[in-house]
Amino acid sequence: MSETPTVRKIHVPLGDRAYDILIGPGLIGSAAREIAARLTGRRMAVVTDENVAPLYLQPLMESLAQAGIEAVSAILPAGEKTKSFEHLVPVCETILGARIERNDAVIALGGGVIGDLTGFAAGIARRGSRFIQIPTSLLAQVDSSVGGKTGINSPHGKNLIGVFHQPDLVLADTDVLDTLSPREFRAGYAEVAKYGLIDKPDFFAWLEANWQAVFAGGAARIEAIALSCQAKADVVVADERENGRRALLNLGHTFGHALEAATAYDGTRLVHGEGVSIGMVLAHAFSARMNLASPDVTARVEAHLRTVGLPTRMSEIPGQLPPAEVLMDAIAQDKKVKGGKLTFILTRGLGEAFVADDVPTSAVLSFLAENHPDRAA
Amino acid sequence: MSETPTVRKIHVPLGDRAYDILIGPGLIGSAAREIAARLTGRRMAVVTDENVAPLYLQPLMESLAQAGIEAVSAILPAGEKTKSFEHLVPVCETILGARIERNDAVIALGGGVIGDLTGFAAGIARRGSRFIQIPTSLLAQVDSSVGGKTGINSPHGKNLIGVFHQPDLVLADTDVLDTLSPREFRAGYAEVAKYGLIDKPDFFAWLEANWQAVFAGGAARIEAIALSCQAKADVVVADERENGRRALLNLGHTFGHALEAATAYDGTRLVHGEGVSIGMVLAHAFSARMNLASPDVTARVEAHLRTVGLPTRMSEIPGQLPPAEVLMDAIAQDKKVKGGKLTFILTRGLGEAFVADDVPTSAVLSFLAENHPDRAA
Ligand SMILES: NC(=O)c1ccc[n+]([C@@H]2O[C@H](COP(=O)([O-])OP(=O)(O)OC[C@H]3O[C@@H](n4cnc5c(N)ncnc54)[C@H](O)[C@@H]3O)[C@@H](O)[C@H]2O)c1
Ligand SMILES: NC(=O)c1ccc[n+]([C@@H]2O[C@H](COP(=O)([O-])OP(=O)(O)OC[C@H]3O[C@@H](n4cnc5c(N)ncnc54)[C@H](O)[C@@H]3O)[C@@H](O)[C@H]2O)c1
Ligand SMILES: [Zn+2]
Ligand SMILES: [Zn+2]
Repeated sequence: MSETPTVRKIHVPLGDRAYDILIGPGLIGSAAREIAARLTGRRMAVVTDENVAPLYLQPLMESLAQAGIEAVSAILPAGEKTKSFEHLVPVCETILGARIERNDAVIALGGGVIGDLTGFAAGIARRGSRFIQIPTSLLAQVDSSVGGKTGINSPHGKNLIGVFHQPDLVLADTDVLDTLSPREFRAGYAEVAKYGLIDKPDFFAWLEANWQAVFAGGAARIEAIALSCQAKADVVVADERENGRRALLNLGHTFGHALEAATAYDGTRLVHGEGVSIGMVLAHAFSARMNLASPDVTARVEAHLRTVGLPTRMSEIPGQLPPAEVLMDAIAQDKKVKGGKLTFILTRGLGEAFVADDVPTSAVLSFLAENHPDRAA
Repeated sequence: MSETPTVRKIHVPLGDRAYDILIGPGLIGSAAREIAARLTGRRMAVVTDENVAPLYLQPLMESLAQAGIEAVSAILPAGEKTKSFEHLVPVCETILGARIERNDAVIALGGGVIGDLTGFAAGIARRGSRFIQIPTSLLAQVDSSVGGKTGINSPHGKNLIGVFHQPDLVLADTDVLDTLSPREFRAGYAEVAKYGLIDKPDFFAWLEANWQAVFAGGAARIEAIALSCQAKADVVVADERENGRRALLNLGHTFGHALEAATAYDGTRLVHGEGVSIGMVLAHAFSARMNLASPDVTARVEAHLRTVGLPTRMSEIPGQLPPAEVLMDAIAQDKKVKGGKLTFILTRGLGEAFVADDVPTSAVLSFLAENHPDRAA
C-alpha cells in the first residue's frame, strides 16, 4: 500500500499550522492511512452533501472503520445556500455530539460549500478543532481547500462570516472529478486559469495549449491541480491573513461576488467559478479601460475562457440582472473595502495582476453600466 | 480632560494583538477619547443588554457622537441564555449592516454574557473585526473581558462554540459597579478570590482582611480589580491559547460548569460566579480527599467565601439537582478532556493550584455522590 508515484505532495510551511496537500488518484481509499500517519485521535465527524454522499461517503467510512476510527457523518443539501447559519448550527452540534477531542478531527468531504462550512464549524467547535479537507470538486481541489479561509454567507454578502482555520491535511483524490458535471469542472477551471492570470503567464499559455488534456484527466490534470495548489500555498504562506499579496487571489472575484449576489446565489443561474470567469474578463476589460493594460490581453483571456465553455459576459447569465447601481452596492459591501475606498485587483498585462486600493467608485459604476446587458439589449 | 490619577493602565503585551486595559472611574464618559487615541475608524456597533442599556448606553453613544463616531446599537435580553446562536445571528447582521471596516470596531457594553457573545460575533464578522470591551459587571471587569476567549453555549455544554479573539481595548469603568446587584457583585468577587487561590496566597489574605472595603468601592476596589486583571493578563500572555498554564484559570470551573448545566443556566437558581464559588470549594475538598492538600485549606477558603455571602455547597442551590452520574457526564463533556482522561485543576495548598490531567473518573464520581444534597438530605 505504498503511495503510487502519481500522488503529488505539497507541503504548506505555516509553522505550527503547517500541513500537507496530497494530490492524486485513489486517495479516498487510503484516507485513513494518511490520517492515522498524522493524527493520533480515533474519533472523526464527516460532513458531506447529498450529491457526494452516495458516491464517496461509504468508501471513506469503510477506510476509517478499517483503521479503527469511529466516525459519524452528516449529509447536507448541496448548493451555495447551505453556507448559512441554518446549516452551520446542526453541523456544530454533530461535531460536539461526536465528542471530538484534541487529536480527533472534523472531515469535509465535498466541494467548496462543504469545505467552507465545515471548516468554519471546526474552527469554532471547542474554539478550534482539527480539520481535514477531502475536496471533491475541481474548484475545491485547486482553491478553497487550501489556505484556511472558512465561512458562510450573510444576507449582506458572500463569505462575510467566518474564521481563518487551516486544515491539518488536504487529500485531493483526482479520481472523484470523473463524476463532477462538466459545468462544475469548467467552473473550477476558471480558478486554475486565475493562477496564470495573476502572475504565471507561462502557465496560462500552457493551459491554452493543453486544456483538453486537463479536461480529459490523467497526468495533465494532476499537473494543473498540483501547480494550482502550489501557487495558492505560496501566496498563503507569504500572507496568511490577507493583509497584502493574498488579495491577488481575488482577481475576478469582486465583480464575480456581485454577480453571485445579484443572482441570489442561485446555482442554476450562476455558479461561483462562472462568476469568477465573467469577473476576470471584466477585471481585464476595466484595467484596459483605465489604460493600465492592452485590450488585446482582455481578448486573449476571454477567448480562452470561451473556448473551454465558460461564460465571459454578464449577458450570458440567464434571467434579469439588477441595475448597475445595485451591482455597485454589492461591490461596496464586499470585503475589500478600506475607509470607503474601493480595493480592486487590476492588471498591467497577462499575468501581471496587482492590488489597486484607490479605484474611484464612479469609474466602476460607469464601466458596469456600459457592460450591463440591459444596455447591450 | 486628562486621565485622573486613579485610572490604572495595564498593558497586555501580545505582539500584534497587544492592548491596554484601563481601570477606574468615569471611563464610559471618556470612552470615545480613549478609542479615538487608538483606532482611526469612525463607525462602531455597540452591543448591550436590556439591564445595562437604560443605565449606560446613552452616555456612551453621546461620548461617541461627540467624537464624530457614527454608532449603531443592539440591545439583547439579559442572562446566560443569550449566549446562543439565536442571538449571535442578529448581532452578526447588525455588525455587517453597520458596514464596520478594518479600523472601525464592535463594542461590548455589559457583563460577561454580552462580552463573550459580542466578542465572538466580532471574531467571525469579516473573519475578524476590531473589538472593544466595556465590561460593566465585576466578573467581566476582572475576568471575561481580558484574554480573548469568546463564545456561546451549546446544548452539549457551556462555551463550546467560539473563537480566540483579543480585544483592542478594555475600558473597566468602576463607577458602573454601583448599580450592579449585590448578588452579581459577590459572583464576580468569586473570580477575584480565584486569583488568590491559584497562586497568590498573599492576595487572598489581603482579601480576607479588606473584602469589606472592596465591596464598598473606592481605592480598595480599584486595587482588587487591577490586581485581578494583571493576574489574568500574565497568564494569558504566558499561554494565549490554553495549551498549559492558562488552564489554571479554570480552578473551580469544572465543577461550576457542571452545576450551571445541571440548573439549565437558570440565573435565578445559580449564576456563573456562584457556580465557581461552590466549584472552588469542591476543588479544594477533592484535593484534600486525594491527600494533596490539608482540609484546613478547604475550611479557610469556604469560610471566606461564606463570609462575603457566596454559596459554597451544592445544597445551597435552590431546587432539585440531577444525580451525581449526570453531573459527572456534564464534567466529561467539558472542554478539559484529553483522550478520555479527566483534566482537573487541583491544589496542594492555599495558592498552590496545578493542572492534574489524569484524575480517575471513579474518584470524582464517588466524591460527587458524597457531596450531593440528596445524600446529605
Ligand atoms: N475558502 C476559500 O478560500 C474559497 C475559495 C474559492 C471558493 N470558495 C467557495 O467555494 C464554493 C464553491 O465551491 P464548489 O464549486 O466546489 O461548489 P459546491 O461545493 O457547491 O460543489 C459544486 C457541485 O458539485 C457537486 N460535487 C462536488 N464534488 C462532486 C463530485 N466529485 N462528483 C459529483 N458531484 C460533485 C456538489 O454536490 C455541488 O452540487 C463557494 O461557496 C465559494 O465561495 C472558497
Ligand atoms: N471569556 C471569558 O474568559 C470568561 C471568563 C469568565 C466568565 N465568562 C462568562 O461570563 C458570563 C458571566 O458574566 P456576568 O456575571 O457578567 O454575567 P452577565 O453578563 O449576565 O451580567 C450579570 C447581570 O448583571 C447585569 N449587569 C451587568 N452590568 C451591570 C451594571 N453595571 N449595573 C446593573 N446591572 C448590570 C446584567 O444585565 C446581568 O443581568 C458567563 O457566561 C461566563 O461563561 C467568560
Ligand atoms: Zn473563487
Ligand atoms: Zn469564570
